[in-house]
Amino acid sequence: MSSITGALLTDLYMLTMLQGYFQQRMEDTAVYEFFVRDLPPGRGFLVAAGLEQVLEYLETLHFTDEELTWLTGTKRFTPEFVDYLASLRFAGDVHAMPEGTVFFPNEPILRVTAPIPQAQFVETRIINLLHFETVLASKAARCVLAAPGKLLVDFGLRRAHGAEAGLLAARASYLAGFAGTATVLAGKLYDIPIFGSMAHSFIQAHDNELAAFEHFAHAQPDNVLLLIDTYDTEVGAQTVVELAPRLKALGIAIKGVRLDSGDLASHARKVRKILDAGGLTEARIFSSGNLDEYTLRELLDKGAPIDGFGVGTRLDTSADAPYLDCAYKLVEYAGHPRRKLSEGKATLPGRKQVYRSYGTDSVKRMQADVITVEHDTQSGEALIRPVMQGGQRIHAPEPLVRSRERAADQLSRLPSDLYDLDAKSAYPVSVSHALEQLARRADKEVRAALISN
Amino acid sequence: MSSITGALLTDLYMLTMLQGYFQQRMEDTAVYEFFVRDLPPGRGFLVAAGLEQVLEYLETLHFTDEELTWLTGTKRFTPEFVDYLASLRFAGDVHAMPEGTVFFPNEPILRVTAPIPQAQFVETRIINLLHFETVLASKAARCVLAAPGKLLVDFGLRRAHGAEAGLLAARASYLAGFAGTATVLAGKLYDIPIFGSMAHSFIQAHDNELAAFEHFAHAQPDNVLLLIDTYDTEVGAQTVVELAPRLKALGIAIKGVRLDSGDLASHARKVRKILDAGGLTEARIFSSGNLDEYTLRELLDKGAPIDGFGVGTRLDTSADAPYLDCAYKLVEYAGHPRRKLSEGKATLPGRKQVYRSYGTDSVKRMQADVITVEHDTQSGEALIRPVMQGGQRIHAPEPLVRSRERAADQLSRLPSDLYDLDAKSAYPVSVSHALEQLARRADKEVRAALISN
Repeated sequence: MSSITGALLTDLYMLTMLQGYFQQRMEDTAVYEFFVRDLPPGRGFLVAAGLEQVLEYLETLHFTDEELTWLTGTKRFTPEFVDYLASLRFAGDVHAMPEGTVFFPNEPILRVTAPIPQAQFVETRIINLLHFETVLASKAARCVLAAPGKLLVDFGLRRAHGAEAGLLAARASYLAGFAGTATVLAGKLYDIPIFGSMAHSFIQAHDNELAAFEHFAHAQPDNVLLLIDTYDTEVGAQTVVELAPRLKALGIAIKGVRLDSGDLASHARKVRKILDAGGLTEARIFSSGNLDEYTLRELLDKGAPIDGFGVGTRLDTSADAPYLDCAYKLVEYAGHPRRKLSEGKATLPGRKQVYRSYGTDSVKRMQADVITVEHDTQSGEALIRPVMQGGQRIHAPEPLVRSRERAADQLSRLPSDLYDLDAKSAYPVSVSHALEQLARRADKEVRAALISN
Repeated sequence: MSSITGALLTDLYMLTMLQGYFQQRMEDTAVYEFFVRDLPPGRGFLVAAGLEQVLEYLETLHFTDEELTWLTGTKRFTPEFVDYLASLRFAGDVHAMPEGTVFFPNEPILRVTAPIPQAQFVETRIINLLHFETVLASKAARCVLAAPGKLLVDFGLRRAHGAEAGLLAARASYLAGFAGTATVLAGKLYDIPIFGSMAHSFIQAHDNELAAFEHFAHAQPDNVLLLIDTYDTEVGAQTVVELAPRLKALGIAIKGVRLDSGDLASHARKVRKILDAGGLTEARIFSSGNLDEYTLRELLDKGAPIDGFGVGTRLDTSADAPYLDCAYKLVEYAGHPRRKLSEGKATLPGRKQVYRSYGTDSVKRMQADVITVEHDTQSGEALIRPVMQGGQRIHAPEPLVRSRERAADQLSRLPSDLYDLDAKSAYPVSVSHALEQLARRADKEVRAALISN
């Protein structure tokens, strides 16, 4: 992955600003925080994801000679500045909510503290990673809540937005509770279970469906999941029943069938009957095709006897909410709290902490969050923790299964009204008195600066 | 880029099917075509993009030893099959519409002809590339049509879905007529002009706006585009006017200002007056912030005096239509035309060609397309051309500027009702008699196969 995450994967203005900082020798400590301003319509919560990729990026950030030569060739930068870039590394601190944490608008999930050139430069890629993985984990969590106990598999690589989107979608959906992915490389990179059997063209390349099924079973005797809707779904199911005894004689069990088109609930019911009547009560029904949390809920509300789902395009593109209104904002520079006043985009200044309180019921459901200043103490759990110091990780990378357990725990403790796919009420998040005071102080400083203009 | 496009960037079922083909020694010639089934609501046309990345992928496809070792470790594949994968290369033929061609539903834009294991295996990545770049080029073309003559720049990397999405979005939007991108690496990889100046945090890190503007101008004297909305847009514009003479004395010209928040039309009018009154009639107004084709049209309809736009999130995620209903389908195997009958997903069989006829008016506007069989001859221009033979490109890679010229030419020749952002009528695309006959023949063969099941 490292070739695509080189130092030039950034916006040009990072480099033009850095040249400004360099010439003015501005290198005081800057503090930036990443947060989401608003939830997409109908969404009640988000799931933090992408921290591991951000830390990898920060640990390895540097310009190669080839990149520096290219930058010189653009004639936009002085030789002194290009020399300075040659030695640029990330040597700052990072605090973050761990991956899999449920969070809400205006709560920072990542804080970067470093000399301003370093903290500024990493903005583009940090947003690029945290934004997308959080979009995906949040979308996938909704699918998991809509289909409790079902096997969910990410099928989206082909219509994901490029290679990395497909890989990170596989990772983020697994983190949120999916069982695995069809994307082989994601299995290798992130140690995620992989799933897959056959496409329609495999059937079509054979003289008939029966031959295709039989050939497949011989080639993958431990993975006999047969796609039965290429020509006629019910005929396909009958063909499976017909084939089963011959395979059984060879010690091969049919694990299940897949439906990919038509009225999935109606087909599933008919197919279940055909399989059961044929003695294949153990064979599972798996379905795919235009699925998302809404269609999953609809199918399960209809009582469709489907055991697992391949969720593709609408998951990997987060089709109903393909982006979040998020930002990586300067909140402090050289010891002074900062905030932007741009219309409709005012932000909370200073280094922050988020405390979460839980109920005393058996599930210990989430009750309310307070956003406050870094060293304030509030009751509840402090969600933002140190993860990198002086450019070095404080702990070894967290195994993805551990983040996945955290997400499952968090999702099991959501307030019950947040399980609704169309969230009507907002989770209570308040701003502490101490943070409000800091905001007033920051505004006073900004106004003084405006007058001195 | 090559590390992310390795052979394992595929769906698991490609490998399970290939093991089936391998064991049955099925390696007859298969023909697959990529096409889009439907246009997203309101869209009247699409712009083909991504062919160059597909050809790069096909030329370089191979499994590394490390990938093969990992596959062996999954225990899903026989040693003989893994040996076979070690020698797998793409040695087939490719026909395609050139990048930048306007196209419509059911028209194939790419055809792959190869032994079935090869033609099948490349499906996932081919769709992943063609789908996304086509989504992006089509979205960007709408922005270009909504803002004729304006400078449009891709600002979307941070909220694009991962690194590759940001890079390919920069490429596809440039192809469709954007002037360039903020993404530095896209500038290097694709030789696209890059744009950028400063973010709010650069202003905030200084004691006041004036100091920030002055420092920036000294650091980037050829690129003085000043962001004026951090605190108060009109005050920011006055500060620019105040600073201009001091910079002029040093031989530095202020190229323009950028607005990123609030009512852009209203601010632009006030800012234009302030700049003009201050003698800065040459300074351009550039704006950004939640833009897409609809907001561009609205701003220009209001007569906002804005010269250029940075279009980000909604472009790079194609927010209103983040995916297309597209497919890469088997249309012929071993000389027999094939089509799938799955409900609602029936496709046209056989190798196809698309002919486009143009009017005799001075613009030579597009009039109608006919989809027909490969060697049929119809009047008009044949859009599908050979691009790869036996795994080798027929021509050198087409320079991106050439594809960009083609897109501009095509967009200038759209039927006039397709310029509407909410297309009400469909462009006429018909299916030839010869193709209809082939479809009937394919259905007959499929039904015979069903009976023989």
